Amino acid sequence: MPEFNNVTIVKKANVYFDGKVTSRTVVFADGSQKTLGVMLPGEYEFNTADKELMEIMAGELEVLLPGTSEWKTVKGGESFEVPSHSKFGLKVRSLTDYCCSFLK
Amino acid sequence: MPEFNNVTIVKKANVYFDGKVTSRTVVFADGSQKTLGVMLPGEYEFNTADKELMEIMAGELEVLLPGTSEWKTVKGGESFEVPSHSKFGLKVRSLTDYCCSFLK
Repeated sequence: MPEFNNVTIVKKANVYFDGKVTSRTVVFADGSQKTLGVMLPGEYEFNTADKELMEIMAGELEVLLPGTSEWKTVKGGESFEVPSHSKFGLKVRSLTDYCCSFLK
Repeated sequence: MPEFNNVTIVKKANVYFDGKVTSRTVVFADGSQKTLGVMLPGEYEFNTADKELMEIMAGELEVLLPGTSEWKTVKGGESFEVPSHSKFGLKVRSLTDYCCSFLK
């Protein structure tokens, strides 16, 4: 799906790591939220509150999921899930365009 | 207004200058469009098609508008307009969160 319809978008950007990771929050009619974001090359660690589904629309990165010790390559068109209340590591290899869904 | 309601957002990011400038396109019920974007510090030149209203939500930059020879400082909470079919220069001094409206 190339677009989200009938949504609310928060104007203010979410900014992390000096702007190397930024996103905008999209709110759906059912109250669920996603963020659409861009990550520039670099290494990052994120904490989750909700469970997250990370869809990589474009780019390439490696992810270290909680409870694992091996970095896994993820490319545009692929996705991964992260449990709630955990942390995960990313090594972004090329500019990454992503959609993150917060799951209950 | 902190958010846009009942809009369509294009999932894919618009990426310029190796990702130092990125934005997402928001489409309104009347067909008009805005982009919500982030610019990292740097110097950029942009071309316009439509007339543009650039609202700087956060950050600081200098702009060189077409037909002028003096750079003008613009800060969060301020805005400027650019004529259609022209070009303008930006020196972004700190991470800038903006909303660009395309005017007919």
